[in-house]
Amino acid sequence: MSEVQNILFIMADQFRADHLGCEGHPYLKTANLDALAKRGVRFSRAFVNSGVCGPSRMSYYTGRYPSSHGTTWNRVPLAIGEVTLGEYLERAKRDLVLAGKTHVIPDVVGLQRLGIDGQSELGYLLRRGGFKEIDRYDGHHPPGQESGYPAYLRQHGYVSDDPWTDYVIAGVDAKGEVVSGWNMRNVYLPARVAEPHSETAYMTDQALSFMRNKGDTPWVLHLSYVKPHWPYMAPAPYHNRYNADQCLPVVRSEQEKIDAHPVVAAYRQHEEGQNFSRDECIRTVRPAYQGLIHQLDDHLGRLFDYMEGAGLMKNTMIVFTSDHGDFLGDHWLGEKELFYDAIQRVPCIVMDPDARADVTRGTVDNRMVEAVDFVPTFLDALGVEGASQRIEGMSLLPLLRGETPVWREAAFSELDYSFRQARLLLNKTPQQSRAYSMRTDRWRYVYWLDEPEQLFDLETDPQELQDLGRDPGHLATREQLRSQLFDWMARRKRRVTMSDEEVVRATHAHKRAGVFFGQW
Amino acid sequence: MSEVQNILFIMADQFRADHLGCEGHPYLKTANLDALAKRGVRFSRAFVNSGVCGPSRMSYYTGRYPSSHGTTWNRVPLAIGEVTLGEYLERAKRDLVLAGKTHVIPDVVGLQRLGIDGQSELGYLLRRGGFKEIDRYDGHHPPGQESGYPAYLRQHGYVSDDPWTDYVIAGVDAKGEVVSGWNMRNVYLPARVAEPHSETAYMTDQALSFMRNKGDTPWVLHLSYVKPHWPYMAPAPYHNRYNADQCLPVVRSEQEKIDAHPVVAAYRQHEEGQNFSRDECIRTVRPAYQGLIHQLDDHLGRLFDYMEGAGLMKNTMIVFTSDHGDFLGDHWLGEKELFYDAIQRVPCIVMDPDARADVTRGTVDNRMVEAVDFVPTFLDALGVEGASQRIEGMSLLPLLRGETPVWREAAFSELDYSFRQARLLLNKTPQQSRAYSMRTDRWRYVYWLDEPEQLFDLETDPQELQDLGRDPGHLATREQLRSQLFDWMARRKRRVTMSDEEVVRATHAHKRAGVFFGQW
Repeated sequence: MSEVQNILFIMADQFRADHLGCEGHPYLKTANLDALAKRGVRFSRAFVNSGVCGPSRMSYYTGRYPSSHGTTWNRVPLAIGEVTLGEYLERAKRDLVLAGKTHVIPDVVGLQRLGIDGQSELGYLLRRGGFKEIDRYDGHHPPGQESGYPAYLRQHGYVSDDPWTDYVIAGVDAKGEVVSGWNMRNVYLPARVAEPHSETAYMTDQALSFMRNKGDTPWVLHLSYVKPHWPYMAPAPYHNRYNADQCLPVVRSEQEKIDAHPVVAAYRQHEEGQNFSRDECIRTVRPAYQGLIHQLDDHLGRLFDYMEGAGLMKNTMIVFTSDHGDFLGDHWLGEKELFYDAIQRVPCIVMDPDARADVTRGTVDNRMVEAVDFVPTFLDALGVEGASQRIEGMSLLPLLRGETPVWREAAFSELDYSFRQARLLLNKTPQQSRAYSMRTDRWRYVYWLDEPEQLFDLETDPQELQDLGRDPGHLATREQLRSQLFDWMARRKRRVTMSDEEVVRATHAHKRAGVFFGQW
Repeated sequence: MSEVQNILFIMADQFRADHLGCEGHPYLKTANLDALAKRGVRFSRAFVNSGVCGPSRMSYYTGRYPSSHGTTWNRVPLAIGEVTLGEYLERAKRDLVLAGKTHVIPDVVGLQRLGIDGQSELGYLLRRGGFKEIDRYDGHHPPGQESGYPAYLRQHGYVSDDPWTDYVIAGVDAKGEVVSGWNMRNVYLPARVAEPHSETAYMTDQALSFMRNKGDTPWVLHLSYVKPHWPYMAPAPYHNRYNADQCLPVVRSEQEKIDAHPVVAAYRQHEEGQNFSRDECIRTVRPAYQGLIHQLDDHLGRLFDYMEGAGLMKNTMIVFTSDHGDFLGDHWLGEKELFYDAIQRVPCIVMDPDARADVTRGTVDNRMVEAVDFVPTFLDALGVEGASQRIEGMSLLPLLRGETPVWREAAFSELDYSFRQARLLLNKTPQQSRAYSMRTDRWRYVYWLDEPEQLFDLETDPQELQDLGRDPGHLATREQLRSQLFDWMARRKRRVTMSDEEVVRATHAHKRAGVFFGQW
């Protein structure tokens, strides 16, 4: 093992932390991720800073919390004032290369306002959040984004204007009819696409071909899979690799529905909440979801085998994580966004090839890790300078190398639900539709604008079934947690136009600047 | 009186709210401001959002709190991502014209990063915070800024490389020696500059000449005086218009120094705090400070007389306010920044020429007004669109026109003291050196990072002499106020790349976008 030359930053989409063999899943096989954990560190308390793709990813890409980077939900453009990992690397003459999904929405208004040509080199990077794209593929194809995947499918015989809809997320039912994976009732069927041409296989191929081309040249690659995110259509043989009895038990109780928190109750009224409240849906989707994960793990095995053979395991830091989890019926909910561990906790394995990390190999670290930590970790590993006045996370390198720095005791997450039906059901304005959450060792606390708080005692209620947010017996606990959350918020980094180092140089310097106030 | 065609936005620098005749000052004459108050509304509880020039002004110019616009102290550049009053007006084909001070520091790094030519039309406005400058004059001449004032002085016979230092802030003592107004012991002397060539006279002349040139063409002018800000050197006859017994009594007590708040105690150790703790200093500075105000009022009389004659009083909204106050020895402090009414409360007179405002003329409005309210007020008065996702203040127009909208019950202010000696004395990092304050009808509450809270009960202690921040009897009050402050902070506008109106249009619209998650 030697020092970090390359970084492979692997992200899966909507991948629950408890869906890993090494996390104790009794049936699901993730042999390759388990093996990676043995070679590195598994962080058992890794949390996202938002339970939604867009804001969560922008935290991964900027090192800043959602209320700092401003992308509070999926459709919100990433402000061109934000500095991304790609831009920090570019300043050090390194590229951040992308294969897969980022969910970056370009700040077209910001570019126009400042007269920046979106087609220029600068405009290219700003529109893409600093990534240089091998192939950007966000899955369900936001308009105006290009991926080579549809063309690839057509080359391999999937003749269609929209091969994704017709093959990748479609199946053929018993009557011989083509049916869509958008309807979850159909996801027991194998996808019409052959496994080697599936999204996961294709994106792994992109990464492999990238690595082959790079040879010994250093690189940083974000390999960002769109799976196991919906549509939950798995190709054979993964579609029925698991049956419904080989899935985790659903975490929910009748009690939860009584006097439920208004926002949670509204999310339960969403179509996905209604459908995932039915056992039939859960028993259909969960096996397919596990199949997609098993498939992903097999492709990671293929990738890691290549890297081993090419000597890349010796000089490449490998991170595996996800942008959030998936309720899959837990708490009578589908999809994501809300503040439960099913959504907020993500798989997190980091393999640091440096010899100094040998002391931690194969260990499980239960310190609180957040999405904002990855930008500082990558910059630290590569010796590239960041921006002290912007980056809010902390480098994981000391943890990986056996040090015991002062560390946080809570993880924080935010939600803007103004785009969701829940806002309409609750008759809110967009500015009112926000929440902040804090997760400590023992507590999950949520502060909602204009709605009651939520509180779960994870010591007595690890499944988060009993909301103590309005329980008179927990008033003091809520007050204390609210104060802690406030203190966190009061420390967000807002002075972005001047570095801490410049501030230090300019401190108490008025006389040097020819200004002599206060003299008698 | 007719509808608002022009806006005259007058700002004085470091002008305490209680230094106005119409605020009850027993000696100081401000006849012209008092007359303006009779024609408009005086807001008796107008507060700045920071007790320092730069951040306070950026709140006046953007309609956003300091932690939103990011200019947390004087030397911090205004991020080019921020949208100013000038830019909103420009989108409506109107200019925001400047005569005087703004304290805008250009975001040179931001311009370079985005490849924007600082000399282009766009670069010009971005560097100047959206102002089109007649003459920008920040007083003590930050490097690289141009003003016509030195040349004007030379034309009028003040022969010097630096006529400001040699004439405007200098005097001649009894021995015939030229002495500097930087040393406060000298400010009993008249300035060497003749009154008609003083800063206040010069800038009034600029405004008059601007109005004459504009004729009937609509305009928006920011007339921004550098006085009564230090150096406290007043020209004759204002230098001795008042004697030390015609000043307000100093607000301080011996009790205040016992077990003082650590940050307040550190500010008292600053040179200005030390000197303003001496009666000699107070009795020398306060009369000069009052003289500078009297002079300013006289020049406003000259300006208002012209406007009356030119018919401009009928169609011009006039605002008079300040960026913060001045301790002048109160609380054993000099200068500004900290959270006391001496600093945070400012004069605020608004004259709305519209006939709908006739119902409020001559009244005093005690609702809480903040610096962030002026951008929305001006846009509202001119019918120009702002940005719902950015502007955090509220238009004062309904208040001026006799309406009773739901209004705020507290004013908020922020401080970043990382550039000050106090940070060094307290051994803090820049990121730790911050505070947030809330002022309600009854309470002043301050939350300091890593330091005790402050609390003043203005009902029993209107002079803010007794800090209850660590008083066990006020624990519940502090908790309640901290929660209120937190709620305010949780509502700051962070999603700046997308308007509320766009969010509303995009709400619950996934199926329209071809995304069918959650279907069974």
